[in-house]
Amino acid sequence: MCRWLAYSGSPISIYDLIYRPEHSLIDQSKHSTMGAETTNGDGFGIGWYGVGVEPGVFHSVEPAWNDRNLHDIAQHILSPLVFAHIRASTGTAIQQTNCHPFRHGQWLWMHNGAIREFPTVKRDLILAVDPSLYPSIEGSTDTEVFFHLALSLGLEDDPPNAVAEAIGLIEEVGRRHGVEYPMQGTVAVSNGEKLWAFRYSSEGDSRTLFYSTDVPKMRELYPDLEILSVVNDEARLVVSEPLRDLAGAWNVVPESSYLVVQPGPDESHPFTPKVPSSPTSMPAGV
Amino acid sequence: MCRWLAYSGSPISIYDLIYRPEHSLIDQSKHSTMGAETTNGDGFGIGWYGVGVEPGVFHSVEPAWNDRNLHDIAQHILSPLVFAHIRASTGTAIQQTNCHPFRHGQWLWMHNGAIREFPTVKRDLILAVDPSLYPSIEGSTDTEVFFHLALSLGLEDDPPNAVAEAIGLIEEVGRRHGVEYPMQGTVAVSNGEKLWAFRYSSEGDSRTLFYSTDVPKMRELYPDLEILSVVNDEARLVVSEPLRDLAGAWNVVPESSYLVVQPGPDESHPFTPKVPSSPTSMPAGV
Amino acid sequence: MCRWLAYSGSPISIYDLIYRPEHSLIDQSKHSTMGAETTNGDGFGIGWYGVGVEPGVFHSVEPAWNDRNLHDIAQHILSPLVFAHIRASTGTAIQQTNCHPFRHGQWLWMHNGAIREFPTVKRDLILAVDPSLYPSIEGSTDTEVFFHLALSLGLEDDPPNAVAEAIGLIEEVGRRHGVEYPMQGTVAVSNGEKLWAFRYSSEGDSRTLFYSTDVPKMRELYPDLEILSVVNDEARLVVSEPLRDLAGAWNVVPESSYLVVQPGPDESHPFTPKVPSSPTSMPAGV
Amino acid sequence: MCRWLAYSGSPISIYDLIYRPEHSLIDQSKHSTMGAETTNGDGFGIGWYGVGVEPGVFHSVEPAWNDRNLHDIAQHILSPLVFAHIRASTGTAIQQTNCHPFRHGQWLWMHNGAIREFPTVKRDLILAVDPSLYPSIEGSTDTEVFFHLALSLGLEDDPPNAVAEAIGLIEEVGRRHGVEYPMQGTVAVSNGEKLWAFRYSSEGDSRTLFYSTDVPKMRELYPDLEILSVVNDEARLVVSEPLRDLAGAWNVVPESSYLVVQPGPDESHPFTPKVPSSPTSMPAGV
Repeated sequence: MCRWLAYSGSPISIYDLIYRPEHSLIDQSKHSTMGAETTNGDGFGIGWYGVGVEPGVFHSVEPAWNDRNLHDIAQHILSPLVFAHIRASTGTAIQQTNCHPFRHGQWLWMHNGAIREFPTVKRDLILAVDPSLYPSIEGSTDTEVFFHLALSLGLEDDPPNAVAEAIGLIEEVGRRHGVEYPMQGTVAVSNGEKLWAFRYSSEGDSRTLFYSTDVPKMRELYPDLEILSVVNDEARLVVSEPLRDLAGAWNVVPESSYLVVQPGPDESHPFTPKVPSSPTSMPAGV
Repeated sequence: MCRWLAYSGSPISIYDLIYRPEHSLIDQSKHSTMGAETTNGDGFGIGWYGVGVEPGVFHSVEPAWNDRNLHDIAQHILSPLVFAHIRASTGTAIQQTNCHPFRHGQWLWMHNGAIREFPTVKRDLILAVDPSLYPSIEGSTDTEVFFHLALSLGLEDDPPNAVAEAIGLIEEVGRRHGVEYPMQGTVAVSNGEKLWAFRYSSEGDSRTLFYSTDVPKMRELYPDLEILSVVNDEARLVVSEPLRDLAGAWNVVPESSYLVVQPGPDESHPFTPKVPSSPTSMPAGV
Repeated sequence: MCRWLAYSGSPISIYDLIYRPEHSLIDQSKHSTMGAETTNGDGFGIGWYGVGVEPGVFHSVEPAWNDRNLHDIAQHILSPLVFAHIRASTGTAIQQTNCHPFRHGQWLWMHNGAIREFPTVKRDLILAVDPSLYPSIEGSTDTEVFFHLALSLGLEDDPPNAVAEAIGLIEEVGRRHGVEYPMQGTVAVSNGEKLWAFRYSSEGDSRTLFYSTDVPKMRELYPDLEILSVVNDEARLVVSEPLRDLAGAWNVVPESSYLVVQPGPDESHPFTPKVPSSPTSMPAGV
Repeated sequence: MCRWLAYSGSPISIYDLIYRPEHSLIDQSKHSTMGAETTNGDGFGIGWYGVGVEPGVFHSVEPAWNDRNLHDIAQHILSPLVFAHIRASTGTAIQQTNCHPFRHGQWLWMHNGAIREFPTVKRDLILAVDPSLYPSIEGSTDTEVFFHLALSLGLEDDPPNAVAEAIGLIEEVGRRHGVEYPMQGTVAVSNGEKLWAFRYSSEGDSRTLFYSTDVPKMRELYPDLEILSVVNDEARLVVSEPLRDLAGAWNVVPESSYLVVQPGPDESHPFTPKVPSSPTSMPAGV
């Protein structure tokens, strides 16, 4: 349904992240091996923290494998925190406002998966978005609504809790509408300082997600791997699908868990959705 | 803010309607003389009734003056009822789902103007859209919400009443949010058999709208005008801006009125918004 | 490298040709089984003969599976002679001027395959294009140059001879530059009355090409196949890849041969390239 | 026909160059006052020297005023040497390969104006392009051919001489074909270290071109102008149209002259086309 990559570490060229690896994200746009679809050609996006006041985003409706602007821009931007996403639409329109990552102030958000039967549940979910945030929804995807639910539920203060409540709400609304497994997917979110990556689905059978092995250990395993000489010890990749076929390089993010990539040791925690305590913005009877 | 053209009559090439006239809609895309903006270059769309089950639409984010596909398609489609629209965005994204005309089943809808302070009033208006219609809103424009309000309020049964109620609702919601003049613009709507064209603004100073003089009278005035030899007596154009500088050819649609173009004599009526009697889909307190 | 379809017969909706079949051309854009690439997502085009003075063309750089305009236009155009093409670029830019079918006056042309090492031989081939035709080359593909060579060599008078000479020239120029197998592919060309389809490669191992079995015989085999009730006895499809898995429905166009689809019995002939007798437009020494 | 801006100086955000000024290039895309057209909406491009091996370019077929990617990227790229260009096509297709600036290795090139009657003279000009450079022509504009002529005539060794010879050749070929005034326009070219800006037309009535007054003098005149606090003393802008209405800020580049913007004092010289001494790549008889 999509493929994504998130990087945190010393500043690196986006080109080195998304074009150079053997089974790069650009390669996955045409030849994904673990995705629900082989082809992820319904637009793409990158987001990065850099010299601008807000993180930058670049969205395109072209397949990533074709986009010459991406090829150039990727070579000219160095960043310590990068999101990249290739899209396989589950039905919503191919337009820039539907491309990930989505941005709100300092926050970036991207998603692989789906809110199931979204047309059925969309209105109820929209009603739960804080009215002050509502006007900033520009596209028609489930992911953008999901992001705005998390923002409404305190993403900027406590991301794991806000994501747990957003998914709890999505599951509650979905089940009320007879959806057996309302939520599926992996999510990455960042404020430019930390990176959170979630893997969860209502059916307990989530889209794949991997994180890279510690750089110091990788250097022991692969002393000649060029990329390891340009990144610092803290560098970490989180990806839908491994970029290189290297034994010991990739670790599965466990089912129903989330990672925190941050200065100092990174963390992994179990993840459980919870129903929002005070969905005050929801009209009575919804 | 936009320019549009609607045609009803014997089947005619779309090219003859939008390219061939001296100050054609395509010319207006770069050199509008009566619009709020000289340039209407933020995408365009055409809609027509023809051989398909539903009316066809063709939308593009390119300026109309550039689009080669439009140039070809216009020459290859003959239709008895055509809508054409060139867009000057008032801020919402340039994407196909924001291009007019909008379609719902047999209905086409297009608009020149704005729901003022739309980000402020959008959520309340969305709540008034029938929940079963809500999922079919794909873009982010005021016009598409306006269309869905009219559909929710009975457009398919009584277009003048539904438009009056939709505008009544928009004015009520707008004023509750402190908007002095909530509504501005001209609207064309059709079911393939009749064409309704509205001119109204809360401030009583609406965007321009013109309709063409009867074909028989035009033939007396301009016996050599080529287009008059290919259309029937019933043919009628309604336009934001006259297409040719011909004395006696264009008549102002009066302020706060609407036209009905139909088989047999066309009609003109005064137009007054009214507050919907039973906005049943609106949640309490809205 | 591409997939194409050509239809000649009683007027039919383009939608019925390219969307409705089980393994339709639209399906092939994402899931080709016989092509050099599974994905043919680098733009597409359709061409058709209809009410316009020239045949119409509609080109897009989007993948065909995404294009909503194609979906609508296909339903609204009936035509007795249709070309449709989905592209997998061999390196040249994704732009409308590189999309097939190409048009010159009444002629349409499309191609699956390649002039090998095109950057190396392009200049010499361009020099052989008639100077009066040269300015109408707008894109950067090998196919458009191939078309203009055929036009320069008399396509409008004798298509099989012009294509044979164009390929003869391409092979001569290629071999002079050390290209082992200069030509590969299948070509469809039409003037709106007849349709010629060529299958040839320098190595004698050409891209696949099939033609449909006679409609009367198909009706015996598949009396319930709906499409057979809307086409006449003369209807014929020529395709890169079969559209339905029906025994007896598809016949291989033999290696090094061409078909002529025309009023009355269609024909099949062997095909041999020949060096142009008088390449008068070629500068000395080339 | 187009508008452009070139900047050389201390690294600056592209946003500060093309969005922030009062009558910015983005504003000129819709409201040019000195151009041949008010609207320059047929695509745009930026080029810059930065961290990549080659200068970066970003091209788009959208009007510059609409492009959200440009808005973001401009804020995230700092560069000491920037080209920006908004296009008003003189007939050639709207596609990225026709957007300025054009790039060859370390060189960027952009142009406002035209080679007159280009379809007539194009073939002869193309024949004069070095065969090894010919395959890198991807689009269909006069400007790209002009650039490749200059490259063929030694641009990388002596830019003023190569441009003089390229224009000399264009004038000779044009006059042979009966074109009264073959050349019109202004050109900017850079290798990342120096910037050359030419103003010339066969009729001696060239498109406007201006350069900014010395920064130290500007600081005396406008001590509060914010931009002057972020650029160094050497900073220089060359523009088709002044960006701010500030007395003393803009100086006309004289008719038939060129500027050299470089480390140390900049220079201005008269410019005269000259016929290439040894157009060895031209076939006999051309």
